[in-house]
Amino acid sequence: MNTNFAERAGQALAELRRRRALVHNITNYVVMDFSANALLAVGASPVMAHAVEEVREMVALAGALVINIGTLSAPWIEAMFVAGREAGERGVPIVIDPVGAGATSLRTETALKLIEELKPAVVRGNASEILSLGQAGGGTRGVDSTRAVDEAQATALRLAAAWQTCVAVTGAEDFITDGQRRFMVGNGHALMSRVTGTGCVASALTGAFLAVEKDAAVAATMALVVYGVAGEMAAVGLPHPGTFRTRLIDALDSISPDMVTAQARVKES
Amino acid sequence: MNTNFAERAGQALAELRRRRALVHNITNYVVMDFSANALLAVGASPVMAHAVEEVREMVALAGALVINIGTLSAPWIEAMFVAGREAGERGVPIVIDPVGAGATSLRTETALKLIEELKPAVVRGNASEILSLGQAGGGTRGVDSTRAVDEAQATALRLAAAWQTCVAVTGAEDFITDGQRRFMVGNGHALMSRVTGTGCVASALTGAFLAVEKDAAVAATMALVVYGVAGEMAAVGLPHPGTFRTRLIDALDSISPDMVTAQARVKES
Amino acid sequence: MNTNFAERAGQALAELRRRRALVHNITNYVVMDFSANALLAVGASPVMAHAVEEVREMVALAGALVINIGTLSAPWIEAMFVAGREAGERGVPIVIDPVGAGATSLRTETALKLIEELKPAVVRGNASEILSLGQAGGGTRGVDSTRAVDEAQATALRLAAAWQTCVAVTGAEDFITDGQRRFMVGNGHALMSRVTGTGCVASALTGAFLAVEKDAAVAATMALVVYGVAGEMAAVGLPHPGTFRTRLIDALDSISPDMVTAQARVKES
Repeated sequence: MNTNFAERAGQALAELRRRRALVHNITNYVVMDFSANALLAVGASPVMAHAVEEVREMVALAGALVINIGTLSAPWIEAMFVAGREAGERGVPIVIDPVGAGATSLRTETALKLIEELKPAVVRGNASEILSLGQAGGGTRGVDSTRAVDEAQATALRLAAAWQTCVAVTGAEDFITDGQRRFMVGNGHALMSRVTGTGCVASALTGAFLAVEKDAAVAATMALVVYGVAGEMAAVGLPHPGTFRTRLIDALDSISPDMVTAQARVKES
Repeated sequence: MNTNFAERAGQALAELRRRRALVHNITNYVVMDFSANALLAVGASPVMAHAVEEVREMVALAGALVINIGTLSAPWIEAMFVAGREAGERGVPIVIDPVGAGATSLRTETALKLIEELKPAVVRGNASEILSLGQAGGGTRGVDSTRAVDEAQATALRLAAAWQTCVAVTGAEDFITDGQRRFMVGNGHALMSRVTGTGCVASALTGAFLAVEKDAAVAATMALVVYGVAGEMAAVGLPHPGTFRTRLIDALDSISPDMVTAQARVKES
Repeated sequence: MNTNFAERAGQALAELRRRRALVHNITNYVVMDFSANALLAVGASPVMAHAVEEVREMVALAGALVINIGTLSAPWIEAMFVAGREAGERGVPIVIDPVGAGATSLRTETALKLIEELKPAVVRGNASEILSLGQAGGGTRGVDSTRAVDEAQATALRLAAAWQTCVAVTGAEDFITDGQRRFMVGNGHALMSRVTGTGCVASALTGAFLAVEKDAAVAATMALVVYGVAGEMAAVGLPHPGTFRTRLIDALDSISPDMVTAQARVKES
């Protein structure tokens, strides 16, 4: 499947750029700038809007909605549900990023309610977050993962089946499943964990690929492949994290469909 | 007019740096960091404050107020009006940036109300936004312009005359008018559209120049010249957008009044 | 004291990295990204959370709480008190950064109330801010200091004694006192004042060192030494501010305990 998939991923990147897919983000304050620039660099068109008065109209223009709970508060939670319901009615695919689930009950409960009610196409988190959502481990310590992707695979499979959604667990390797199929993405670089918000950017890019690929597990896998290859490009010479971040944006701009096809490392099992 | 203007623009930059003009920004979450660093780099002193309890006091210290509707919500709208009224009473010039006008009615209506009530010195937007405000075209798709500056010139002229303000339309070329005079700025680089918030930064810099130049159309034109020359400096070697953004901040710091005078490309018609 | 202290500072950096000290930030929108990346680069684990519903749980996981008033509003003030009280009950040390104190009464009064009620381990500000809190000078003009560190020393000593806390005044040289001991840090570089939020990052790093060093004046001094040495590393070649900021993050990652020990410039008087 690797060759076919690698070609499809390259084609999806080209298509995303052709359409300049509009991605509506309701995301956390920390990563808004980074996420917007990553989306713009890869070829999508980012928009941030969180007022309950306007999210319905904004999501109606969008190819995907990305909901990220990294700096929650009550008015933002309300807007997430309003935007998400409108997205559901219009068939706009939703990504939910449960940042810090397990660290506080507000985060865990909000993430679970959002998933239950909005039926997202993709839930993307690190291993700690996914384990917390499955109540299989808990013990998130802040927002950085303390658990390995391996430990979260069984939980991800179970949750994906229960929620009828795709669950993507990102880390040293990425594991993506819709409860049946399982994809492993070997692209990426350890430097990505040295920059704040790289997980959030993975979710934003997943939104961009959902705008051009209906199969959610395939779209999430494509996004993580493209992002991972860009991370490998940015990591050449092992820069420190400030420089690495700048180069990661550069790489999302300079990566070509052919590079994606040539460098994708995906396994289906 | 080009030579005289180019000299005046250089002198205004020197004066702005001498005074360290304080610019009060009520702006969107995505660009706060970028805008603050751009203002600091060019030689101004940025401050962000949005609480209704403090905006009156803050704007009283400022040389200009920049209002940007990029991530609106009800409490921020209230603070925009409170700050703007105080600015009006004190003669502090106001820039309004109608980010995403046309994409949602909240944005279009808020922008129009702000302009009507606060009588800003300058309204700066991309072509889609200005056309939306003139109800001449509508159809903003998110926050990135889908229209060319040319298409918005007639609307900008009409709006500037009706509002008795300066309207600046930025894009490949920039068009600035107070309803009578028309300035075209040829400086700038296409890479500027590959970084999120470059339009917002144009508005912030316009605020900085309004603090030292009372003629609003001239101030806006100066800001766009200085910013455009900095953009050209940053674009040398055609870096990718992550690196370009870093260099744009570098260029706003390293640009000298003489460079501005030598490289300004402005036409009055 | 210099040699001993320099060694201790290097050891504290190693310990902070070993523990990946979790620092809970309730900070301003402008610097969230920069602060989070600085903390991550130096080896700590940053988390931002500001909802009154979750700050108690989050601070319970943290090694330190950093409260920064740079973009205040009523709900954030409430959360600062709720988080701070919980931190107090749990013995989690608090840093307060009174950004813009003196510019508006909301900022001055909020800072004073936070300090009085929460009894922070460290208050870190620029000279203008510390003078404003001591009502000795006032006249903050926005958020950038218009006063020199020297002018604020007497006020800092008096406030530290009155509040029974450590007061750190940062600038060309940094002055740190607990009302009795006085430390001067000579590390740092003038370029740090050309980037927005470098003061806020100093406060965030102080939080990280408080997580591993109980003596607050020593922890603040260590943080400012490490940060200052990183600033000197980043300033090599005198880059412009965009590049300097990127390199400052790089330097916080690449700085070793041995470099800290070798390059610390601290005087106790």
